[in-house]
Amino acid sequence: MILDKINSPDDVKKLTFNEMNTLSSEMRELIIKKVNTIGGHLAPNLGIVETTIAYHYVFNSPEDKIVFDVSHQCYPHKMLTGRKEGFLDSNKYLTYTGYTAPEESEHDIFKVGHTSTSVSLAVGLAKARDLKQEKGNIVALIGDGSLTGGEALEGLNNGAMLDSNFIVIVNDNDMSIAKNYGGLYSNLELLKKTNGQAENNFFKAMGYDYLYLEDGNNVEKLIETFKKVKNINHPVVVHIHTLKGKGLKLAEENKEFCHWILPHALDENKPAYSEKETYNSITKNFILEKASKDPSVIAITPATPGVHGFDDEFRNKLKNQYTDTGIAEEHAVAYASGLAKNGAKPILNIMSSFVQRTYDQLSQDLCLNNSPVTMLIYWGGLSSADCTHLGCFDIPLISNIPNMVYLAPVNKEEYLAMLDWSLEQTKYPVAIRVPNTEVISTGIEDKTDYSILNKFKVVEKGEDIAILGLGNFFGKAVELKKLIKKEFNTNATLINPVYMTGIDEELLEELKNNHNFVITLEDGVLDGGFGEKISRFYSSSNMKVLNYGGKKEFTDRVPLDKIYQKCSLKSEMILEDIQCVFAMEQAKLGNFYSFN
Amino acid sequence: MILDKINSPDDVKKLTFNEMNTLSSEMRELIIKKVNTIGGHLAPNLGIVETTIAYHYVFNSPEDKIVFDVSHQCYPHKMLTGRKEGFLDSNKYLTYTGYTAPEESEHDIFKVGHTSTSVSLAVGLAKARDLKQEKGNIVALIGDGSLTGGEALEGLNNGAMLDSNFIVIVNDNDMSIAKNYGGLYSNLELLKKTNGQAENNFFKAMGYDYLYLEDGNNVEKLIETFKKVKNINHPVVVHIHTLKGKGLKLAEENKEFCHWILPHALDENKPAYSEKETYNSITKNFILEKASKDPSVIAITPATPGVHGFDDEFRNKLKNQYTDTGIAEEHAVAYASGLAKNGAKPILNIMSSFVQRTYDQLSQDLCLNNSPVTMLIYWGGLSSADCTHLGCFDIPLISNIPNMVYLAPVNKEEYLAMLDWSLEQTKYPVAIRVPNTEVISTGIEDKTDYSILNKFKVVEKGEDIAILGLGNFFGKAVELKKLIKKEFNTNATLINPVYMTGIDEELLEELKNNHNFVITLEDGVLDGGFGEKISRFYSSSNMKVLNYGGKKEFTDRVPLDKIYQKCSLKSEMILEDIQCVFAMEQAKLGNFYSFN
Repeated sequence: MILDKINSPDDVKKLTFNEMNTLSSEMRELIIKKVNTIGGHLAPNLGIVETTIAYHYVFNSPEDKIVFDVSHQCYPHKMLTGRKEGFLDSNKYLTYTGYTAPEESEHDIFKVGHTSTSVSLAVGLAKARDLKQEKGNIVALIGDGSLTGGEALEGLNNGAMLDSNFIVIVNDNDMSIAKNYGGLYSNLELLKKTNGQAENNFFKAMGYDYLYLEDGNNVEKLIETFKKVKNINHPVVVHIHTLKGKGLKLAEENKEFCHWILPHALDENKPAYSEKETYNSITKNFILEKASKDPSVIAITPATPGVHGFDDEFRNKLKNQYTDTGIAEEHAVAYASGLAKNGAKPILNIMSSFVQRTYDQLSQDLCLNNSPVTMLIYWGGLSSADCTHLGCFDIPLISNIPNMVYLAPVNKEEYLAMLDWSLEQTKYPVAIRVPNTEVISTGIEDKTDYSILNKFKVVEKGEDIAILGLGNFFGKAVELKKLIKKEFNTNATLINPVYMTGIDEELLEELKNNHNFVITLEDGVLDGGFGEKISRFYSSSNMKVLNYGGKKEFTDRVPLDKIYQKCSLKSEMILEDIQCVFAMEQAKLGNFYSFN
Repeated sequence: MILDKINSPDDVKKLTFNEMNTLSSEMRELIIKKVNTIGGHLAPNLGIVETTIAYHYVFNSPEDKIVFDVSHQCYPHKMLTGRKEGFLDSNKYLTYTGYTAPEESEHDIFKVGHTSTSVSLAVGLAKARDLKQEKGNIVALIGDGSLTGGEALEGLNNGAMLDSNFIVIVNDNDMSIAKNYGGLYSNLELLKKTNGQAENNFFKAMGYDYLYLEDGNNVEKLIETFKKVKNINHPVVVHIHTLKGKGLKLAEENKEFCHWILPHALDENKPAYSEKETYNSITKNFILEKASKDPSVIAITPATPGVHGFDDEFRNKLKNQYTDTGIAEEHAVAYASGLAKNGAKPILNIMSSFVQRTYDQLSQDLCLNNSPVTMLIYWGGLSSADCTHLGCFDIPLISNIPNMVYLAPVNKEEYLAMLDWSLEQTKYPVAIRVPNTEVISTGIEDKTDYSILNKFKVVEKGEDIAILGLGNFFGKAVELKKLIKKEFNTNATLINPVYMTGIDEELLEELKNNHNFVITLEDGVLDGGFGEKISRFYSSSNMKVLNYGGKKEFTDRVPLDKIYQKCSLKSEMILEDIQCVFAMEQAKLGNFYSFN
């Protein structure tokens, strides 16, 4: 095996073209095997194998520095930079992350997982090099749809002003996660058709020198091209045309499906697709039904249709009532605001982790204008995700913006009622946190009037202790209530707060009459979140409040159970806390607090 | 006066070219007079007078809809759409805002004050029109530097995909607030030089049809051009070359100075520029000194040098150690992260209101990578600003992001010590909230080791009541302490919390020994902010906590005193609250709580 000889980029430089081609095949095979075993990004990595080999053949990492955009295409890079055992040894499949990670290797500069950041980060590296009067090539690798993100375009505009070495490799594989979208891609098509010769050239218009390589999966030609730009003294774009999913027929033909796959997705005997109802299927059915009755209903996603289960059938049914904005989250929010302001009914679908890109658009374009947009926030909550894709910050992010109504449904009927209310009202921007739990159904239609803002639901009236179980964590509240009954023989009050953007002052005031404890549970970081608002409300009273939720930190692939443990998010731990506070109170005040 | 006849856009349509030219002069005169009286955006409005007249001559507002970018160039529009008395009658100068405001007129669609949003918002309007199968032109007016903001570029890319009427007017006045910056502007220069004929054309590359008009201040030619695109059935860019500040020599020659002016800036006898020390001058001197000693120090601003007092002298001294990224806040943060990662010492200067555009970059590009960037946040705090430019959300925004260290200095010496520490350390991303108060100096060098994170400073040790006065509001804490002494004869403990990103658990625990009350004061909205963290800490104890700060709302030009009143931010009101809680406690618990 050629890969046996490769322990660092230096070893790549010793290979012949033939050996490099063999190496490509070896690497592809290992990538397919690993990704099919543990899941991960498949097609992006298959497309970039030759580019990576050629890069390390021509450039000298880590003196020369490369920044991967999104960095989900760094598997080949990891294999050539001392981390091949993460692919060769199935016991070590989980040793390295699926993204660049400076703590793993000096050949990785940044932790990256969100898109469209590479050019800006690399402009910074280049400018620092110049300030320190150092040498070396700075390379940004971008493509796979991320070119249309605002940060990338801002970065390109600024990078052009460098009066020194700066190389942007545009990996043009004709794709985003889904199909590319936007006017810019028509220019990329033109450039490909004319072998890079078209006069009208987006990159030249942005102030860059420009080179085109049609056969972006040919190591020899890649090396030749990279040699031309190595040590160049000005900004240049190297536009390479690659085949996403190359080397695996299924991936070449189903690029979107193979962008990121679950374990064993490639196996012939893989379990049949589950027909079970999910919050995704509920959402899809809701949108389809509404859209069929009302031509002004429109579903929007910023390049993540797969996350929402928006398959071809769904898109074909919606036709012009569906927009995939491409990777352009900021635009997606402003676009939705414009739609709503002109009388349409937009439903914007976005992941918790990516809604982070839109704080100012939520504030200015949406909430300041009170545009009645329905936003659905997916994958919100504590999770075992990579540190780059956490979904635990959306409650602080969204709920502290004026005018916004942010809802946390706890079951199917509530979710549907909220969707319906949000879509038909015209007074507020509404966000709904799509539950990340199994579907829970009461079987009873929810007739709540959600226009009465900040009205919490008392699910079971009790005494002494009130438990506020928000959204995904309502189940935890139910569990805790049972345990309290068992341990204290007390019927705790069970509350579904529903609203994350305001508190039910009347109810909270009322609780003072026959409650001593309030427990809040939320599936996200506590800092700036929901529980702190309850603590503030009671802070000058005698009510004891205990807030439960996540810690303010970037966890990285930490098992969820471990996170719950660390954050005392288990019922028996909460019970202990209550007992502890109770005991302290008794010690201090005699028997002032007492459970019946 | 021609303007006398203009009560709505319909009246504009009745004018001759000569009358329109006269009207232009009249409008200019009124704009200059008003802006010089009450302050505001001068040069942008002077440059767009003819465009606005021509627009209302050709298009039919409000059926045809125009979205102004930033909307600081909407004064002429307001004059022609029923709001001229806001310019004719000096008693009504404050009747209308300086930005588009739907509550004022059906001719304004959005509240806008941040840049680069018009295209995306207009794409939404256009798509809604199409879904509802309605007619009408949708126009986005952009320019004045805002074209390079990521949201605008995302919007352009998406707008090109409309299969219907969509008109983008690019108001190219050769300027941002300061000089334009970036590769894209080289293409705009080329287009201007070639009268729009250059083959290489950014807008065409983005998928747009394209028209160029060199004389963008000629009403007749503007009308002719607009007529060509009215009712067009596809996306088109109308690139017009205008003169920023037109009609006022000072403004034409000093475009940056005259972008936004203070009252009476144009008067010959205006008060001489104050030589008083400000936090801006302190910052500038610090940067200049550091930069002169260390070539890796670099100051960055995203197009707001004026806000920071970065004048020509400053820029000329720094040379390549200064970057104005143009309107590109996201890039600015990622760029700073790249600089830091490669060993430079970036100081990013940004307004509180605009740092909102960078949440995800702060989280992913900066904090996840722990890049040692120094960020200076200006104009943070409650204010009487327009609803579009509030600076009261940065504490919740920044302080809930992991790894970030966000500092609130209370005097000059602290500020300098923080700046120095931040610049020389390499472990954390640090943000410092530049005080918005008068400069307060202790005269004693601050030798605090700020690397001991989250250590609050006890300024005066007392008992019973502890007051945490954060940053700008430390002065309020001092005042409150005095009042408490007078009313209760109690020496309250005075604390400067310093850190907004964490709490001093040891100190807070200790306070329990001889304090019953903790008061927090912060210059920003309470929701998600600093005080709530203190409330959470004490929520299961007997400590009574009262949080003071702003309400979660978009205030709009509300006098600061009124805001303080509404938020109980006056010492005597806080005292009343304390007395009230105290009385309730006594009633409930007998004499358990007592002041010595």
